[in-house]
Amino acid sequence: MTLAEIGRSLLEQPSVVILTHRRPDGDTAGSAAALCLGLRQLGRRAWVLDNRQFTARIAPYLEGLTRPDVPQDALVAAVDIASEALLSLDAEACGAQPQLAIDHHKLNSLPCPKYIGLGRPSCGEIILELLEQLGVTLTPQIADCLYLAVSTDTGCFKYAGTTADTHRAAARLIEAGAHAAQINKLFFDTKSFARLQLEARLTGSMERYAGGMVGLCVLPAEWLRELAVTEDDIDSISGFARTVDGVKIGIMIREVEDGLGKISVRTEAPYDASALCAQLGGGGHTGAAGASVPGGAAAARTAILDVLVRSGITL
Amino acid sequence: MTLAEIGRSLLEQPSVVILTHRRPDGDTAGSAAALCLGLRQLGRRAWVLDNRQFTARIAPYLEGLTRPDVPQDALVAAVDIASEALLSLDAEACGAQPQLAIDHHKLNSLPCPKYIGLGRPSCGEIILELLEQLGVTLTPQIADCLYLAVSTDTGCFKYAGTTADTHRAAARLIEAGAHAAQINKLFFDTKSFARLQLEARLTGSMERYAGGMVGLCVLPAEWLRELAVTEDDIDSISGFARTVDGVKIGIMIREVEDGLGKISVRTEAPYDASALCAQLGGGGHTGAAGASVPGGAAAARTAILDVLVRSGITL
Repeated sequence: MTLAEIGRSLLEQPSVVILTHRRPDGDTAGSAAALCLGLRQLGRRAWVLDNRQFTARIAPYLEGLTRPDVPQDALVAAVDIASEALLSLDAEACGAQPQLAIDHHKLNSLPCPKYIGLGRPSCGEIILELLEQLGVTLTPQIADCLYLAVSTDTGCFKYAGTTADTHRAAARLIEAGAHAAQINKLFFDTKSFARLQLEARLTGSMERYAGGMVGLCVLPAEWLRELAVTEDDIDSISGFARTVDGVKIGIMIREVEDGLGKISVRTEAPYDASALCAQLGGGGHTGAAGASVPGGAAAARTAILDVLVRSGITL
Repeated sequence: MTLAEIGRSLLEQPSVVILTHRRPDGDTAGSAAALCLGLRQLGRRAWVLDNRQFTARIAPYLEGLTRPDVPQDALVAAVDIASEALLSLDAEACGAQPQLAIDHHKLNSLPCPKYIGLGRPSCGEIILELLEQLGVTLTPQIADCLYLAVSTDTGCFKYAGTTADTHRAAARLIEAGAHAAQINKLFFDTKSFARLQLEARLTGSMERYAGGMVGLCVLPAEWLRELAVTEDDIDSISGFARTVDGVKIGIMIREVEDGLGKISVRTEAPYDASALCAQLGGGGHTGAAGASVPGGAAAARTAILDVLVRSGITL
C-alpha cells in the first residue's frame, strides 16, 4: 500500500487501536501516540493498546491514550512491529491481530497490508509524513511524541541511518513546539546511578584482546539484582564494549534465567557480527548480532572466543 | 558588520590567516578549516594559524591548511573566539591580533569589527551561511568540517540551543557529502579505555547528598597520571556528576598544579551555578560555573559544601 492508501484506510474506520512492539522503545511508543493523537484531532476514535512493558520514561507520552482491549468495530494498526513474534504481551493476551502495518523494517513479516518506509531511520519519520498528508495540525504534544520517536531511534541523529530528511523532520517538529532539549536530556544525557555503577563494574572486568581490537564483558545476573537495575538502566548495554576506542568487535555476555548464556556481538567493518554469531546458531545484522549457548555465561565466553580464533583472529 | 560585509572584507584581502581559540574544540577548528577551504576555492590565499593544542581527533581536519605565522599582507580573522584571553598560544606567540571576528558568543569582547550570530548554537552554522552567500560549492571536505563544528558544539543536536535552522544546516551538509555517522561515532560514541576507567573511579567515589539531588566528585591529579589520561579523555568531565539521574547540582573538584582546588558546578533550575560560585569569588552561567580555592581539593570540597549549606540546602 502507499502511504496515502494507509491514510485513507485509517480514516474510513469507525475506530482504530494501535499496537506497539514488545520491549517498547521511543519509536514504537512515540509513533503510536502521535498517530492516535492525529486521528483524534481528525474526529476519529483512536487508542493505543496497553503495553505493560512501557518504561517509566516512556509511559507519560501515552497518558490518556491507552485502553486494555480492542473494541469489536476497531481496525488494529501496528506501528514499528516487524513480525508477529514482536507483538506486545498485551496484544498477545487479548488476541489482537494487526490488520494494517506502518513500519521501517525491510523484512517486516506481518501478514497484513502494510507500508514500509525504506530508508527511514525511524517509524516516527513516516508517521510525521502521514499526519502531514492527512492535514493534521502538529500540536506541541504530537511534535513531542514524534521527536521522541525520531530522536531515540537515531541515537539523537548520530547513527548511520540518519538522513537529510531526518534532520528536516526534526526541524519541523521543533518549529511545531517539540521540547527537544528536555527529551534529549532525559533519554541521552541522564544515567541512573545504578547504570553508572554497572558500567564501572563492566569496565573493571572488561577483557581486551588482539591489541584492544576485541572487548569482552560478562554481565552476571547477580549484578543486576545487587544494583537493583531496571530495564531502562540496561538500555543498549549490549554495545558497551564496542564504545571503547579501538574496539572493532565488542561482546557482551549475559546470564539469562534458563541456564543459557546470551551473547551479543557488535562489530565495525571488516568484521561481521552476524557471520560470527551464525557459527553458534545465532544471527542478526552485519554490525549487531546475537546467539544463545547452553551452559551459562562461562560456556558462552569460551564459545565466542573459540569462534574468534577459528575466524583467524589472534587473541 | 553584516555577514555580507564580512564576506566582502574577506574577499578584498590578498590573503587571510584564521585564528582558532585556546583549548580548541570542533567548532573553532571546523569553522576555521571550512572558511579557509572556502576562500581557497574562490582563488584566495588562506591559512589557519597553527594551534599546538589541536587534539588528535581534531588535527586531521586542519591537514594542509595551517601555517605558523602571519604574512605581512594578511588579514587576521578570528572564528569562535570570545575574548583576547582566549586567543591560542600560537596566536600569542606570534603576536597575531584579530582584525575581523565571526562568532556566536553574545559577549564577544575582541576589539575589532565583527559579526555575532546570536541564536546560533555553533560558529559553524554562521560559516555555512557565509560560504553559501559567497557562492562556495560545499565539497564533502568543507561539509565534514562544518558538520564537525555544528555537531560537536550542539552535543550532536542535543543541547537547548539547537534550533530548526541547525537541523536544516545539518541536512544541507549531509546532502553535500558530510560523513556524519563517522564523525559522530568518533566524537560521541567512542570513549578511550582510560576515560572509562576514570569514570569508574569517579562513580565509585561519588558523594551524594540531599537524597541524590547533589552529586560531588573529586578528581585527584594522580588519577590522570596513573591512567595516562589525555585532554581528549577528560573532555566535559566537569559535567560527570550532573549526568546522574536526579542530580540537580553536580560538582567536580580537580586538583590543579598550583595548589588550587578548581571547582566546577553544573546545575538545573531552580539552582544557579553562578550564584553558588560567586560566593567563592568565581562566576559563570546559570547552568555552568566555576571557582578556584587555595588549599587544594580538600579545601575546595569543604568550601563548596559550606556554600550549599549556607544556601539552604540540607546535606
